[in-house]
Amino acid sequence: MSEQTYSEGDLRNTGMSLKHDREWDYELDRIVSAVEERDAEKVGLQFPEGLKRRGPRVADDLRELVDDDVTIMLSGQPCYGACDLDTFLMRRTDVFVHFGHSPMKESEKIIYVPLFSNVDVLPIMEEAEEELADPEDDPEVGLVTTAQHMNRFDDMADWLEDRGYEVLTRRGDERLTHEGQVLGCNYASADVPADQVLYVGGGKFHPLGLAMEHPDKKVVIGDPVNNVVTIADTEKFLKQRYATVHKAMDAETWGVIFCTKIGQGRMDQAEKILDENENAYLITMDEVTPDRLRNFGFDAFVNTGCPRITTDDGPQFHKPLLTPGEYEIAVGNKPLDELSFDTFHGTW
Amino acid sequence: MSEQTYSEGDLRNTGMSLKHDREWDYELDRIVSAVEERDAEKVGLQFPEGLKRRGPRVADDLRELVDDDVTIMLSGQPCYGACDLDTFLMRRTDVFVHFGHSPMKESEKIIYVPLFSNVDVLPIMEEAEEELADPEDDPEVGLVTTAQHMNRFDDMADWLEDRGYEVLTRRGDERLTHEGQVLGCNYASADVPADQVLYVGGGKFHPLGLAMEHPDKKVVIGDPVNNVVTIADTEKFLKQRYATVHKAMDAETWGVIFCTKIGQGRMDQAEKILDENENAYLITMDEVTPDRLRNFGFDAFVNTGCPRITTDDGPQFHKPLLTPGEYEIAVGNKPLDELSFDTFHGTW
Repeated sequence: MSEQTYSEGDLRNTGMSLKHDREWDYELDRIVSAVEERDAEKVGLQFPEGLKRRGPRVADDLRELVDDDVTIMLSGQPCYGACDLDTFLMRRTDVFVHFGHSPMKESEKIIYVPLFSNVDVLPIMEEAEEELADPEDDPEVGLVTTAQHMNRFDDMADWLEDRGYEVLTRRGDERLTHEGQVLGCNYASADVPADQVLYVGGGKFHPLGLAMEHPDKKVVIGDPVNNVVTIADTEKFLKQRYATVHKAMDAETWGVIFCTKIGQGRMDQAEKILDENENAYLITMDEVTPDRLRNFGFDAFVNTGCPRITTDDGPQFHKPLLTPGEYEIAVGNKPLDELSFDTFHGTW
Repeated sequence: MSEQTYSEGDLRNTGMSLKHDREWDYELDRIVSAVEERDAEKVGLQFPEGLKRRGPRVADDLRELVDDDVTIMLSGQPCYGACDLDTFLMRRTDVFVHFGHSPMKESEKIIYVPLFSNVDVLPIMEEAEEELADPEDDPEVGLVTTAQHMNRFDDMADWLEDRGYEVLTRRGDERLTHEGQVLGCNYASADVPADQVLYVGGGKFHPLGLAMEHPDKKVVIGDPVNNVVTIADTEKFLKQRYATVHKAMDAETWGVIFCTKIGQGRMDQAEKILDENENAYLITMDEVTPDRLRNFGFDAFVNTGCPRITTDDGPQFHKPLLTPGEYEIAVGNKPLDELSFDTFHGTW
C-alpha cells in the first residue's frame, strides 16, 4: 500500500493497528538463541506499520537478554506485507527478524515471527452465521482468514462443522504458507466449490480482494477486531476501476512499472507490453507512490507490481494506473467485460 | 528532500525543473559507445526529479542508436542529488547512466552525464553586482555555483575580475567534484577569506544552506533561472530550527535515523548517541519521509542522514526531527548558542 493514502481497504484497520492492547508473543527465546548461535553483532527487527510503535519495547526486552555489544536496528522501511521484506537491513545484520507476516519462501537468514491475535473469533462467527445459508439448504461454506488469526483456523472450522456446515478449505498455492490463508494479492485458498465464503479477520482489505477475485461467491465478513459483520460489496470498487480504464483509453504514452520488491517482479508481463507498444517505457522502483509517478510525463501507467496499490490506491494517482489485465482492455486487446482482479502467484 | 513537501528551498525550483525549454546535451555518443563496448543488454537511466519527464525522449533517441534487443530502464526512485543513486538499477544493468549530478566518487560502472544549463548567467550577474561592495572598498568576493552552471564558472570569475573584484574560489573537499561547486550539504568551497559570496544559480535551496554554514558572510543570490537577485535570509530558517530544538527538549524517547543511501552513512554519530542514551533506538531507512516516521511512537528523532531533509522539511514531520548537532543541544550536552548548520564531508 502507498505510504500516504488511507483507502477503504486500508491495512491499518485490520487489527494489526492495535485498537486493543494485546499481549503478543514475540518469540524472544527463538531470537536470543539465534543471536547466540550465530554470535551476532547486529540484529535487525522489522515490524508491520501498525506494530512499529511496539519496536522499542521489543528492542528493550532483547537488550536485556543479549550481550551489551549487540546492536539492535529497527527497519524504518514501509511494511504492509511479506513483499516488503527489508533486504538492505537483512543483508547487513547477522540475525534478521520479520514480524507479523508468514514467509512467502523460507530463508535461513530470516526469522519469521508470526504474531497471532488473541481476539476471540467465535462471538463474531455466531453473528456471521446469520448471513450464511441455512446448513439444511446449503451446507457448503469456504473458510479463509489472515496470517494473524491462523492459530484459530481449526477452531473456526470445528465451530462451523458443529453447526452442520461442510467447511471447504484448501491451501491456495506456493505463495501461501497455510491452508485457508489469504493475502492481499492471492485468494487461491477460496477456490473451493462453495457459493459462500466466510472471511474471519480484521478490516475490508482482504475480503474486498476476495470478492473481486470470486465475483460468483457471497463473501461474508466476520470482523472480530472491529466487531462487525458485513457482506463484501465490490460495486464501488468496480466502478472506480471501470472509470480508470476508460480514462486510460486516450493515453498515448505509457509508463510500465516494474516493482523491485521481492515477490513482485513480473518482468515477463512488463516486457510483453514493451514489445507490443512502442510508446511504452519501463520504469523500475520499489515503493509505487503518487509522488514518484508525478514527475514522469506519461499519460497512463501499468503497474506489474502489487495489484492492491493499483486498485485500492489508484484514485490517489494523478494519471490512470492500471493492472496488466486492465491495460489489455484499455488498449483494445480485450473487451471491457474481461475486467478481472489481478492476483499474484508463485514466490520470489 | 522528502517526496511530498515543497519547502522554500525546494530543489524543484532551481532550474532543473525546466521553466524554459532547453536543449540539453545528453552525451548519447558516450552512452552508445559504452553499450557497444560492454555488449550491454540492459541500460539504466536515472534523471533528477525535474528532468524525469525528459526520460522517454532520451530513451527514444537511444533506441534508435542501439540494437533492438537492448532494454532501456528508467529509474523511478526519487532523485534530488548524487546521494540518490539508484544502486538497485545500477547493479542490474550493464550500463547505468546518472544525469545531472556530478559524481561524489567515480565508479567504472556508472556514466555520469552532467547537464549544463544554457541560460546566460551574465545578465543576472550585472544585476547582482549592485548588491556587492564597491570593488574600491572591498574587492574580495567568493564565487560559488551548482553543477549545472559549472560550465560557465570561468566566465563568471572573469566577468567579476574585469570589474575589479578579486575572486576567491576553492574546491571544497573530496565530496565536491569542481572548484566553486556547492552541494545542499557541503559549502566548503565558500571557505574563503571574503566577507561576501556571490552564488549564481537557480533557487534558494543552496544559498540558504550557504548562509547558514557561513553566517558571517553576506550571501548574494544571482538567480539566472528565475531572473531575480536577493540576499540570503536565514532568519526564518533559524527560528524554525530553534523552535524545533526547544520542542525536542521534552523528549523522553528518541529514534536515531541511519540513512542507507550512499554518501549519507554516519554510523559513528548514530552509535555515539545510542551509547550515551538508553532511550535512543536505531532506525534504518532510505527515504526519510513524514509518513515513515509517523508510525513509530518516539517523542523525537535525530537524522544522521541528509541534513536538508531535517532542516528544510522538518516542519512537515509530526515530531521534532533534529540534526546530530541539534540533538546535543536538546539533551543539554551543548549550549543553545552552538546551534550550527549540519554539513557532510567525505564521499561514500
